[in-house]
Amino acid sequence: MSRTSTPATGRQPSPVLPDAPRSDAHADAAARAAALLKEHRTSIDRLDAILVYTLGERFKHTQAVGKLKAEHDLPPSDPAREAQQIARLEDLATQADLDPEFAKAFLNFIIQEVIRHHRKHQE
Amino acid sequence: MSRTSTPATGRQPSPVLPDAPRSDAHADAAARAAALLKEHRTSIDRLDAILVYTLGERFKHTQAVGKLKAEHDLPPSDPAREAQQIARLEDLATQADLDPEFAKAFLNFIIQEVIRHHRKHQE
Repeated sequence: MSRTSTPATGRQPSPVLPDAPRSDAHADAAARAAALLKEHRTSIDRLDAILVYTLGERFKHTQAVGKLKAEHDLPPSDPAREAQQIARLEDLATQADLDPEFAKAFLNFIIQEVIRHHRKHQE
Repeated sequence: MSRTSTPATGRQPSPVLPDAPRSDAHADAAARAAALLKEHRTSIDRLDAILVYTLGERFKHTQAVGKLKAEHDLPPSDPAREAQQIARLEDLATQADLDPEFAKAFLNFIIQEVIRHHRKHQE
């Protein structure tokens, strides 16, 4: 009968350190930075999940809009609506402390994808 | 003394209609489509607010990451982390019924902006 449990020794391989660490303080600062970096990255990953699911929901609506436009022979692109969205996005971006130029570029990026989808529906 | 208030008449110019509407049913269908289009657009506007605020939050974290990287002389771009993020985004996109190719292009678009920010910090 074999024993499947292995006693935990509590021993861990030493972390790989640079050949000549300048000081313990230096190593501590690097460890703190690594821990902080990890925290920020897990937050970024959670926010990316929000972005992906929100984009998924947004595309459901733009697909429905594309279908309506195709059924009623409306043009896939609507410059008046887009100008309104861009102005609104700039306001929102300022409130959210996001670069309004980036917000505009971001909306354009999404709109181009939406127009590509609408064109597919009308082909 | 001039009066600055103009009484609202409640009168609106008649909507421009096609010369010969095919039928009431046709007009009803167009009105229903217009109402639906409006509903989808208000949903899209709400989702855009989520996207902008989430991006604002995300950039706070990437700015902190950029600062950490600059302080610790780390390169602004991290291909291993980016590859991991892209793989994760593809999974999330599939779950959210979003085109994984679009999700990848979207992440690349954001990452390029983040790298541009990080470079600014290191200049």
